Amino acid sequence: MNKLKRTDRVSLIVKSLVENPNKLITYSEFSRLFAAAKSSISEDLSIIKRVFKCAEVGDIVTVAGAAGGVKYVPQESVADKKALLEALCQALSEGDRAIVGGYFYIADILYNPKYIKGVAKMIAERFYKENVNCVMTIETKGIPLAFMTATILAVPLVIVRKQNKITDGATVSINYMSGSTNKLGQMFVHKGALNKGDNVLIVDDVMRGGGTIKGLMRLANEFSANVVGSAVLLELNAPNNKVIEDVFALLRLKTDQNKLFSVDIGQNVL
Amino acid sequence: MNKLKRTDRVSLIVKSLVENPNKLITYSEFSRLFAAAKSSISEDLSIIKRVFKCAEVGDIVTVAGAAGGVKYVPQESVADKKALLEALCQALSEGDRAIVGGYFYIADILYNPKYIKGVAKMIAERFYKENVNCVMTIETKGIPLAFMTATILAVPLVIVRKQNKITDGATVSINYMSGSTNKLGQMFVHKGALNKGDNVLIVDDVMRGGGTIKGLMRLANEFSANVVGSAVLLELNAPNNKVIEDVFALLRLKTDQNKLFSVDIGQNVL
Repeated sequence: MNKLKRTDRVSLIVKSLVENPNKLITYSEFSRLFAAAKSSISEDLSIIKRVFKCAEVGDIVTVAGAAGGVKYVPQESVADKKALLEALCQALSEGDRAIVGGYFYIADILYNPKYIKGVAKMIAERFYKENVNCVMTIETKGIPLAFMTATILAVPLVIVRKQNKITDGATVSINYMSGSTNKLGQMFVHKGALNKGDNVLIVDDVMRGGGTIKGLMRLANEFSANVVGSAVLLELNAPNNKVIEDVFALLRLKTDQNKLFSVDIGQNVL
Repeated sequence: MNKLKRTDRVSLIVKSLVENPNKLITYSEFSRLFAAAKSSISEDLSIIKRVFKCAEVGDIVTVAGAAGGVKYVPQESVADKKALLEALCQALSEGDRAIVGGYFYIADILYNPKYIKGVAKMIAERFYKENVNCVMTIETKGIPLAFMTATILAVPLVIVRKQNKITDGATVSINYMSGSTNKLGQMFVHKGALNKGDNVLIVDDVMRGGGTIKGLMRLANEFSANVVGSAVLLELNAPNNKVIEDVFALLRLKTDQNKLFSVDIGQNVL
């Protein structure tokens, strides 16, 4: 590429960084790509860092050393987070979502990038400091959110299955007890899916009793991996006796005695 | 926000556009956000358009009229596409992927954002002109790719299920015949998942005989939606008699008589 002006270079650097959140890019890579001295790249990055900080849209983090470089760590302002969560509460309260048995139709929200991108950003931001190197979920409805979180954290996703599938080859499986229905289930995952010592973040769509997340934790333990946290979009207030604690739930759904429900922003989310 | 310099404004505009591909953002929104005249925003956008074009990393498209605005349409250079597809061929040829019955373990690739982001970009680019307003897939392994494609096209995803689930509420279902195994299956989707006249893009992970994609097409037809295209990451050469044509397959997997396989880049992909 021909020699570029500062504004041109800044445009392309911002594009690379924003399109690859949490991915380390070396100064040399930028330097070669734009035929510019590392000192110029360094000044460009200072400008971007300052303006991103001022607009509260994330940080440009420099990692020193031989394997060093620079990465974009996304961040949302409290106002933007609040707006997203309120839009979600609104969307969940609209339409005819109640299904028999205390279930709710929310797949339209769980599969819509318009909402899920922002939710995944909030989860990634919360667990950024845990050095996550793998996101784990169970099929099916939580997969879009889990995959988007993995994308923002720049780590692979592991999908646990509820049935043993030929395409998973040799698997590790456990039995687990659903915390809300007291039913026994099985979960399966490819035997090479996790590594010893992996820092695993569990992401799921909805938590009722917590039995599924507890099962996922136990499955991760079978690989001697560390579960560094769990996050869900929606936690239900019933049943009361959850089998796990410390789940980062963005929204809380409350059902009253007349079976009417309301959705609020979770505790300590903002 | 205080009055910004051109470079600062360009940084933030690039960030908004790149983080929201194919989403229309109005000049007024930028103008208000950065306390700048629309004429300044217009000049900023011209700079970005020129530099993106020059670097072959996408287009800035202006839509005129009352509902008008500007959007970023991602595009990759042929060299970048080729590099990604070659990396995928390499990754698929490594390790012990063969499973009994002619199946292959590829979940690690299908769930890894490192590969899937680029593949989704290529699919989105190919179908950009079809005015897709919904991406459709069937659980489970194709969901990450389908969701990422939906994200890049800024449209919702619909996930079809192989079993009827209570959380889907009232469903529309069809029977379908697997093109490769000659087995009858059922697929289910929420009855409000698609609308009449929707332009649907089908995205899946692997195609053998094509029976599943044909089933998805028939299911879309039940809603009087238009299927504007189908895309898969990997098409298998066996069986020979596919039940559908015109699938955009990024990679082709060939098995020889000794059951050894090789992976090539699909026809007309580059």
